Amino acid sequence: MAQNIYDNPDFFAGYSRLPRQVLGLDGAPEWPAVAAMMPDLAGRRAVDLGCGFGWASRWMRQHGAESVLGIDISATMIARARADTDDPAIVYRIEDLEHLDLPRAAFDIAFSALAFHYIQDFARLSRMIFAALTPGAWLVFTIEHPIFMAAPAPDWIAARDGGRIWPVRHYAEEGERRTDWFAKGVLKYHRTMGTTLNTLIDSGFAIRRVEEFAPSPRQVAADPRLAQERERPMLLLVSAQR
Amino acid sequence: MAQNIYDNPDFFAGYSRLPRQVLGLDGAPEWPAVAAMMPDLAGRRAVDLGCGFGWASRWMRQHGAESVLGIDISATMIARARADTDDPAIVYRIEDLEHLDLPRAAFDIAFSALAFHYIQDFARLSRMIFAALTPGAWLVFTIEHPIFMAAPAPDWIAARDGGRIWPVRHYAEEGERRTDWFAKGVLKYHRTMGTTLNTLIDSGFAIRRVEEFAPSPRQVAADPRLAQERERPMLLLVSAQR
Repeated sequence: MAQNIYDNPDFFAGYSRLPRQVLGLDGAPEWPAVAAMMPDLAGRRAVDLGCGFGWASRWMRQHGAESVLGIDISATMIARARADTDDPAIVYRIEDLEHLDLPRAAFDIAFSALAFHYIQDFARLSRMIFAALTPGAWLVFTIEHPIFMAAPAPDWIAARDGGRIWPVRHYAEEGERRTDWFAKGVLKYHRTMGTTLNTLIDSGFAIRRVEEFAPSPRQVAADPRLAQERERPMLLLVSAQR
Repeated sequence: MAQNIYDNPDFFAGYSRLPRQVLGLDGAPEWPAVAAMMPDLAGRRAVDLGCGFGWASRWMRQHGAESVLGIDISATMIARARADTDDPAIVYRIEDLEHLDLPRAAFDIAFSALAFHYIQDFARLSRMIFAALTPGAWLVFTIEHPIFMAAPAPDWIAARDGGRIWPVRHYAEEGERRTDWFAKGVLKYHRTMGTTLNTLIDSGFAIRRVEEFAPSPRQVAADPRLAQERERPMLLLVSAQR
């Protein structure tokens, strides 16, 4: 099973204070780019894989989805999602994406934010999602970018000119990465960009969009701390179609 | 017009001593991966964009292509390609890919090795190639990986553990990159991976394969200098279909 770090109290205490958890999608600088990749949601049946507090589940309903099934491994996250949601068309379920089996052809869109990099067997998950989608349905997801994840203990290096350098190491060595992020030994799985895209293609998906999120100059002006995200690709956003 | 560094005598003197120029495809460690991405060539009309000395043009003929049109901006390269080729079904032409206009629906495969990163207007080139291909035809190409190209004056950094770190900077800042490589100020154009793939998709191509070349353990055993290419993605290999 996937590591369930979200039910670790120390982790959760730190994690739930992140701007994107306190402010929701307004605290996620990539959200405008993600929203731009979303298909028309009117009347669509959506599944939100790794739904966390349910921010994206509620956003999809607000944008016309007929129903949303939110799934997360963390009981703590799902409890909070349920408490924050007053909408009978959104149902939350505790399940491990590593072993999840959705009904066939039951959804018109599968969405996932920053969850797939916790999954060891992405090929299984990708095939399962493909089967759970109707023909023409969409998969839209974000993950940590493999360039962000590849190096052990990745952190900025000072450049001689005062700028900053993002270190890349072991890029071709796929598999486990353990980092300390609110807790020791958070377990993620590094896959190259090629592996992620080819896995989708091998499942039958057509790749529609590949975005390596970078904040706009306007976003950087509003929050100068975002400037570093123009130096390295931190997040990978993908849309694909069955 | 694209910079034609290949007709600079200093550059050419260095360049033509590279293993991949002396040994041809046997000196290009990515070639087995490229060959694996190639469609069946039997009876196909091929174009080789940035053909250099004609190594890939001859390879495609040896693997069944009915005809090959090799195109390169460099008169020096084309002269050498012609001298090294004894095959009336291979024709070489001096042209700048930045402005090239091929006839419509005239080719069954377009191939390009390490040329597109010299091109400023990749969207124009991609649309032109799409129009020059027959329905179902393939585009297979290699470029320097954007992670290899992004930083100014990119070079390895020593890691504290004795390993090496590849520096990434300015990834989101697309456009000119000037490096010193056998000559001063060799001009290339950095595009993110997302931009390269989305440009192909916007032209009408379906992405079939995305490989970030890394030498196999066997290749590293045969040539330990290749080990560094498992640390960073140096080359991007893409296949797409009209």
